Amino acid sequence: MTIKTELQVSLDERSYPIYIGSGLLGDAALYRPFIAGKRVMIVSNDTVAPLYLALLESALSDYEVSSVILPDGEQFKTLDTVNRIFDDLLKGRFDRQSTLIALGGGVVGDMTGFAAACYQRGIAFIQVPTTLLSQVDSSVGGKTGVNHPLGKNMIGAFYQPRSVVADTRTLSTLDDRQLSAGLAEIIKYGLINDIEFLQWLENNMPALVARDEEALAWAIERSCKDKADIVAQDEKESGVRALLNLGHTFGHAIEAGAGYGVWLHGEAVGAGMLMAAEFSQQLGMLTSADVERVQVLIDAAGLPIQPPAFTAEAYLDLMSVDKKAINGRIRLVLLKALGDAQVVADYPYEQLQNYLQKFS
Amino acid sequence: MTIKTELQVSLDERSYPIYIGSGLLGDAALYRPFIAGKRVMIVSNDTVAPLYLALLESALSDYEVSSVILPDGEQFKTLDTVNRIFDDLLKGRFDRQSTLIALGGGVVGDMTGFAAACYQRGIAFIQVPTTLLSQVDSSVGGKTGVNHPLGKNMIGAFYQPRSVVADTRTLSTLDDRQLSAGLAEIIKYGLINDIEFLQWLENNMPALVARDEEALAWAIERSCKDKADIVAQDEKESGVRALLNLGHTFGHAIEAGAGYGVWLHGEAVGAGMLMAAEFSQQLGMLTSADVERVQVLIDAAGLPIQPPAFTAEAYLDLMSVDKKAINGRIRLVLLKALGDAQVVADYPYEQLQNYLQKFS
Repeated sequence: MTIKTELQVSLDERSYPIYIGSGLLGDAALYRPFIAGKRVMIVSNDTVAPLYLALLESALSDYEVSSVILPDGEQFKTLDTVNRIFDDLLKGRFDRQSTLIALGGGVVGDMTGFAAACYQRGIAFIQVPTTLLSQVDSSVGGKTGVNHPLGKNMIGAFYQPRSVVADTRTLSTLDDRQLSAGLAEIIKYGLINDIEFLQWLENNMPALVARDEEALAWAIERSCKDKADIVAQDEKESGVRALLNLGHTFGHAIEAGAGYGVWLHGEAVGAGMLMAAEFSQQLGMLTSADVERVQVLIDAAGLPIQPPAFTAEAYLDLMSVDKKAINGRIRLVLLKALGDAQVVADYPYEQLQNYLQKFS
Repeated sequence: MTIKTELQVSLDERSYPIYIGSGLLGDAALYRPFIAGKRVMIVSNDTVAPLYLALLESALSDYEVSSVILPDGEQFKTLDTVNRIFDDLLKGRFDRQSTLIALGGGVVGDMTGFAAACYQRGIAFIQVPTTLLSQVDSSVGGKTGVNHPLGKNMIGAFYQPRSVVADTRTLSTLDDRQLSAGLAEIIKYGLINDIEFLQWLENNMPALVARDEEALAWAIERSCKDKADIVAQDEKESGVRALLNLGHTFGHAIEAGAGYGVWLHGEAVGAGMLMAAEFSQQLGMLTSADVERVQVLIDAAGLPIQPPAFTAEAYLDLMSVDKKAINGRIRLVLLKALGDAQVVADYPYEQLQNYLQKFS
């Protein structure tokens, strides 16, 4: 079976292709047009590098290739770790015509993109996402950055890759938790504005969990398309792009409250989406049958559906530092219906407090 | 005497005004249109804050204003110091609708701009440059960033302020070295492509050194205009903007080699421009009379004309890490004539080695 799709993310002169398929990682032709000069620095982590670094290096044999291997984990997504990339670039005298390639999941991609955005005020970079989550999320949209002890993704840049190579074969080495975390973001696209896709997911979740490569490739393609459509309308998140944060304000509170790395980002988003659905129901926007469908789907993806037991105050405190807050007000992405998300800021604050009390 | 000029930097939707004049710092009307939300964080340093922070705060009495005071000096222009700004922003729960104001010289402006570029992936910022150098240099062009032990300005972003308020009255508290450092950048604009301005500077250098406010305001305006014209043509420095680096490759080597903070940036650029002129003469591009004019003018500005005694190898080593290097080749901005700079990469490398030997 050969699968290979090319999607275009349309952002004027910053447009770029996403290649999705099986066995693409070692295909030199997919990289060559997007490498700026002669020198390439691959950024990876100590889980992914042993599996795929040699294959990628062999595809880049026409270039002078170095690599920097970072420790694996969300807890290392910090300014200090990005500084290690800068150290290696400067020690190696990489100039402005160099290219960074991110080989790994979302953490590697976000840090590599941010390093590329800032090194000498901007050099080329290519994303090679090796997790399901990063293939459907960080491949599209140009959000890069790091965490701060006081908030997730608080430091970063909007910076687009030259291209994205999403090889579905890398998903075979992903552990079950990571696979499920990716499925959470896939479900998100259905919930936001693609009811047809949501129904497809309800029917095909067993195949996705069983890692059927064709089903995965199709789900990745549809997710990237859905996201690319939204990002093309609103690159800098001044409007519709905010919908992509469905489940993220609750989710970031879960991640930060539990300590980065305890909950996977996708797991927190999964539980966060269910919280968003439940709170939408409390505001009279969803039916209990709708919430039930969300819960069944998230559960079928192998994701936790029970948020951690924090007090309502702790949740509110963690949520208010989120970037989605405007002038102190917590804006939430909620569901008017399945497949129809919207940003809501004018709900009664006490109602949110009441809802959150059930977890404490 | 009242002086007040408004210049526009034309960069499409990122265009912004520069206000130049005497006593502008406390004028609330110059800030109001450019502040995003209700909250403002002023970033300053421990030299400038005691002089001007209270005045600026009083002009912003309609807003919720905080401040962060950094240690003064190029040696503090680091990622760690920028992280202190992030810490304060996050502790204070500043959201995306917040505004940063840089009150100080180039170091404060570069770090504040970089913090604004990266905080929550970009918030508004306003420059209030209080040194001559920052009024003519960092006010225009959107270069922000920090130094790395292995190279100057290696980490940063292109990020434009909403507006710039250059109050010439702040120059009265500047020490002589800082004033001369600013004059170096002013001379640069004449040397690059404005022979008429260069001649004006030759006639008016005594007035500038004596801090004649009218002469200073005119020189600032002309410098900002010259720079804005170049930046408008080439925001991201892919072409003509590189000419603004006249004296900078030599100058950065001087600064880095001597240790940041020993030579002021403007002093290093002054000596670096003279080196560029001398090397241009060795390549047959300038006459000895031209070089003599450059030397006399730099000397008249109160700037050192003798570069430090490093070996040729040390100079070359320090110069090759500079951002202006492409694929390892050191590109230099040289002078075809006074008022006519160009980027040169095809000179004989040995000739540069020979030229540099005279300093060791």
